Amino acid sequence: MTDSYTPPKVWTQKGANGGRFANINKPTSGAQYDRDRPVGKHPLQLYSLATPNGQKVTILLEELLAAGHDAEYDAWLINIGEGDQFASGFVEVNPNSKIPALMDHTANPPQRVFESGSILLYLAEKYGAFLPKDPAGRTETLNWLFWQMGSGPYVGGGFGHFYAYAPEKLEYPIDRFTMEVKRQLHLLDQRLAENRFVAGEEYTIADMAIWPWYGGLVAGRMYGDAATFLDVESYPNVKRWHDEIMARPAVRRGIMVNKTSGDPSQQLHERHDASDFETRTQDKLSAE
Amino acid sequence: MTDSYTPPKVWTQKGANGGRFANINKPTSGAQYDRDRPVGKHPLQLYSLATPNGQKVTILLEELLAAGHDAEYDAWLINIGEGDQFASGFVEVNPNSKIPALMDHTANPPQRVFESGSILLYLAEKYGAFLPKDPAGRTETLNWLFWQMGSGPYVGGGFGHFYAYAPEKLEYPIDRFTMEVKRQLHLLDQRLAENRFVAGEEYTIADMAIWPWYGGLVAGRMYGDAATFLDVESYPNVKRWHDEIMARPAVRRGIMVNKTSGDPSQQLHERHDASDFETRTQDKLSAE
Repeated sequence: MTDSYTPPKVWTQKGANGGRFANINKPTSGAQYDRDRPVGKHPLQLYSLATPNGQKVTILLEELLAAGHDAEYDAWLINIGEGDQFASGFVEVNPNSKIPALMDHTANPPQRVFESGSILLYLAEKYGAFLPKDPAGRTETLNWLFWQMGSGPYVGGGFGHFYAYAPEKLEYPIDRFTMEVKRQLHLLDQRLAENRFVAGEEYTIADMAIWPWYGGLVAGRMYGDAATFLDVESYPNVKRWHDEIMARPAVRRGIMVNKTSGDPSQQLHERHDASDFETRTQDKLSAE
Repeated sequence: MTDSYTPPKVWTQKGANGGRFANINKPTSGAQYDRDRPVGKHPLQLYSLATPNGQKVTILLEELLAAGHDAEYDAWLINIGEGDQFASGFVEVNPNSKIPALMDHTANPPQRVFESGSILLYLAEKYGAFLPKDPAGRTETLNWLFWQMGSGPYVGGGFGHFYAYAPEKLEYPIDRFTMEVKRQLHLLDQRLAENRFVAGEEYTIADMAIWPWYGGLVAGRMYGDAATFLDVESYPNVKRWHDEIMARPAVRRGIMVNKTSGDPSQQLHERHDASDFETRTQDKLSAE
């Protein structure tokens, strides 16, 4: 590739940038219009979308409910293609304008929680679940939770963007981020060769953070034919772990919430009651 | 730019990739050779380098000591250009082969802590410091700590890499990551217009996580002339906050630890005792 680009002294915005998500990328933050956020009947109000980061939280909430915790929630759809994340009511919950974002109305005043990792930790501590209570187990879980937070951008903002979404295919960035994502998959594969779950023998919020991204890659759910490109057959332990977690009913419910693409029978655009999943299944049965 | 690149069906490594850091990028993880890690006299053993992620932890440790906590530590230099992070002894502490990594020998067996955010949280909880005890303050601090973990890769692995380190200047990736870093700086500037510190009126581990990266950008310490390119004068509240934190003696000590570049009088390659800083200052005075 011939390269003759010289950056200017001071960067200026030249127009839309970002391929598929060009319309939502700007060099400034903050609310772009006034609109309150909806508030439903449950103490926990989630504003989200079923991207991997969104799925982390709905999986945890469904797992908490399945384990008998009082974690009922309303999940409202934030359509990022429509700019819902720039409404004033959403920005009050997450000034960074990213999903997922949570309001806990059991606190007075209600508590905002943003960043998927922060929400996972908040809920795990609130309910005393999916985070080991012994110091060693807790620390190892948090090591891997933070590992995902720092590694995920190389998958989504790096590999996924340049491999699948950017308006042109650029060899150097694709090579750079592919190498890093393969390194991360190899690391997880080595880890899961010797441990049932990421943090050890216990299923934790570290698994829930890592599974939607790396499980999605090895199962072929993300970025077109990326599973072939990444040769995910090289990571059999990640696949084994993916399959074990995918078999959990709470996980299958969690990944349906706020989902707006794929098989319509697997989409629950909003979730306001546990029975919403059954209704969805009945819809599917009557349609068949 | 003309683009004629078509990715292959299955990615294969074509050789060195990554510009300045090409030699340390591989698509696999794990130890590359056997070498034990050194262990000094203090309970806390830090293996690190004075990159922004490394500085987060040495700032916290020096702040803890300044506040009277029993947080004495040995800081060992991990020269990532030499591949120290691939030694078996380091990989045992952090299987992800990144600095910083910590061993706490007060635990039995000694506890490993990896990922800078995990280390900050671990130490803040261990000593009960720099993390608000009220639930609202704690949650807001963790929101911003996790925000930095998920945003930092766009600064370092994105903007910094393509603007300063990649072997060729590519317009699209530079534009993409510049826009995102400017959005993050704008977000912080808005936040710091209304709050003395990132999480509120209290100086916390969220500041310590964010300051080395975004403070470094607005103060012109990173990526050549990036401060001009990013027009950091647009973010006066970030600069005000940077300067207030830079004035703290513990921060000035913290950023010297494991530093191997820049002004020699500001480099303390390893830190094994509080008096090491004084020795360094005396060296400087006697050299003047």
